[in-house]
Amino acid sequence: MNFQKVAERLGITQERLEGLQETILKRASWPEPRLMRFEKAISGIESGTAIFESNEIVFGYPKIRRAMMLGPALKRHFRNRVVVEEKMNGYNIRLASVAGEVVALTRGGFICPFSTEVANRLIPNEVFEENPMIVLCGEIVGPENPYVPKGIYPTNDIDFYLFDLSKKNCRGTLGPNKTHQFAEDYGIKAAALFGEFRIKNAYEKIMGLVKQLGRRGREGVVIKDPDNERSPMKYTTSETNCHDLEIAFRYYNDYALDFFLSRAVREGFQSVEWAESAEDRLARARRLGESILLPLVETIQQKKNNEQIVQQVQIRVKSLQTAREFEYHLRRSGLRAIFDEPEPDDDGYIIRISRLIMSTNDKTQSLLEGSPW
Amino acid sequence: MNFQKVAERLGITQERLEGLQETILKRASWPEPRLMRFEKAISGIESGTAIFESNEIVFGYPKIRRAMMLGPALKRHFRNRVVVEEKMNGYNIRLASVAGEVVALTRGGFICPFSTEVANRLIPNEVFEENPMIVLCGEIVGPENPYVPKGIYPTNDIDFYLFDLSKKNCRGTLGPNKTHQFAEDYGIKAAALFGEFRIKNAYEKIMGLVKQLGRRGREGVVIKDPDNERSPMKYTTSETNCHDLEIAFRYYNDYALDFFLSRAVREGFQSVEWAESAEDRLARARRLGESILLPLVETIQQKKNNEQIVQQVQIRVKSLQTAREFEYHLRRSGLRAIFDEPEPDDDGYIIRISRLIMSTNDKTQSLLEGSPW
Repeated sequence: MNFQKVAERLGITQERLEGLQETILKRASWPEPRLMRFEKAISGIESGTAIFESNEIVFGYPKIRRAMMLGPALKRHFRNRVVVEEKMNGYNIRLASVAGEVVALTRGGFICPFSTEVANRLIPNEVFEENPMIVLCGEIVGPENPYVPKGIYPTNDIDFYLFDLSKKNCRGTLGPNKTHQFAEDYGIKAAALFGEFRIKNAYEKIMGLVKQLGRRGREGVVIKDPDNERSPMKYTTSETNCHDLEIAFRYYNDYALDFFLSRAVREGFQSVEWAESAEDRLARARRLGESILLPLVETIQQKKNNEQIVQQVQIRVKSLQTAREFEYHLRRSGLRAIFDEPEPDDDGYIIRISRLIMSTNDKTQSLLEGSPW
Repeated sequence: MNFQKVAERLGITQERLEGLQETILKRASWPEPRLMRFEKAISGIESGTAIFESNEIVFGYPKIRRAMMLGPALKRHFRNRVVVEEKMNGYNIRLASVAGEVVALTRGGFICPFSTEVANRLIPNEVFEENPMIVLCGEIVGPENPYVPKGIYPTNDIDFYLFDLSKKNCRGTLGPNKTHQFAEDYGIKAAALFGEFRIKNAYEKIMGLVKQLGRRGREGVVIKDPDNERSPMKYTTSETNCHDLEIAFRYYNDYALDFFLSRAVREGFQSVEWAESAEDRLARARRLGESILLPLVETIQQKKNNEQIVQQVQIRVKSLQTAREFEYHLRRSGLRAIFDEPEPDDDGYIIRISRLIMSTNDKTQSLLEGSPW
């Protein structure tokens, strides 16, 4: 790696870059191509930024901030118009061609072998042949998604939805107009574009969309500046807030504490902003309470019946090598998972995976045995 | 202060004690008598332990651990029999006579001028005259309680309930039998004693008590070893868990994050242990959801109407000096409060106090104005 060149592209001094090695900047030598990744954000460089041995950089995708009070947030954050897209509920991936191979980078800047296979299957070759510097920022969704399995999208297994573009070695994104044009040109699926609205109408329009999306079990919207000069902002449905809580309370000791509070507070703001009737508000409170208590009870009950607390997922791979590599990838990400024997299916394999939820398992066991909290 | 003598009483070396100064051991020179207090627990010395210039030590009251799954916790923690007392819902105070004055020490080891006045009014002089070394560990409860105002006890203003005894310069407590005998001897109120039960009947008995206490809005029970050889354990009602959440979500940005999670998880364990019907479980979920959403909505709505988020409390004092000193005491404890003009009442004054809930105030204001979370 040429430190001088890379530092220049990152916009920091060579000394600073060298000083970050082994603290912020971590080596990942597998799978190839080898890279160094920013484990934390620093000097405006997003965490997950990856630097390859070819000196090419794929910047981390900027975190999208969340509107709590949508109306005021729109007015404060955007200018005349906004573009509204669907927020897809899966996991983030950045696809780039490096050293002649298309790789899928996770949020943290690791190459995910499974997502790489999926990307190579779903993205036409011309995309990277004709645009060697392009980075596709997208969401992998669908029921055979090992992180966020959901049957709410029109796919039986797994799919990729583009939501932004960027370029290797460049900070910043290309924004909604270029992204949707690109998706159309290459026949790639993109996050649904609900339209462009004037700021003064946007709140009403978005609220309507969010309510509709909620009824369909979808996650919410991302609101963007059509000129891509303001950063995007997200807003989610009540159903998603509650569903997040369901998952979090099912695995209550494995989630960060602010996960619980932030979802509850979102519900409070949405209820106030929507000026709900007393009846609707009580229905929301019940939904919230049920999404907390019922999964908790289920987890405790399960453990009481001597069952392990596991999350069952399944993936579909073309090659058994991908499955083995994915198993290793999960392990290095700190996740413990048991892979069942692959079952041949069509021209590939289905593999069932049980993710062990260790901390909740152990905590629940110990509380059931009479340990104090 | 004689460091050698004090270190010996604390059970640590003189060097260690001296080394703790200004880090763990903090000076509090007001109100008199002056003292040094342990801001954190260390070497088995509870936080809140206070050392006076007379070299006398009042040890911090040990934290009482909580049973999550009551049945197994009883079997695991206790021996043949347990004593069950009511857990009072107010704030903890330790009363001791130091340099000829009865003072009330807070949990943190400060002298609280208000609680000191209350204690001097409620505790007969003979208590400390006849027992100069005694420390009364008790709860201050009632509606005119500036920290946890509650109208659920048989007092119109404020009261003191003894729940344990200890002695100056001695670690450890004297336990339930001596405490109740002492209370009876001196005509002091003590936390209700529900009885002594065999371990094998205790779970059923305590569950019955907890359900009854819940219906009366009371907090729960403290379970003790009659021989005072095992540490006590607490268990609370669902109503208290939910009420705690109501307060916490009303002031959502001023509470520690694990406050929210722990209460929710308690509800899950109680529901499982009580083997609730689907109907009762749903009712619990709704209660839980309502105690989260409704106070949140109220806080947001209040701020939207340009009202400050405050907690209104009131105290009754004999002397205006006490009120002024209490104002200073709150300020040094990091609380911001506005004291109204004292209103003369009987042979004292009523003072209304508005506690400002700064962090929730600011956060809610900023979110309402469109800041992202």
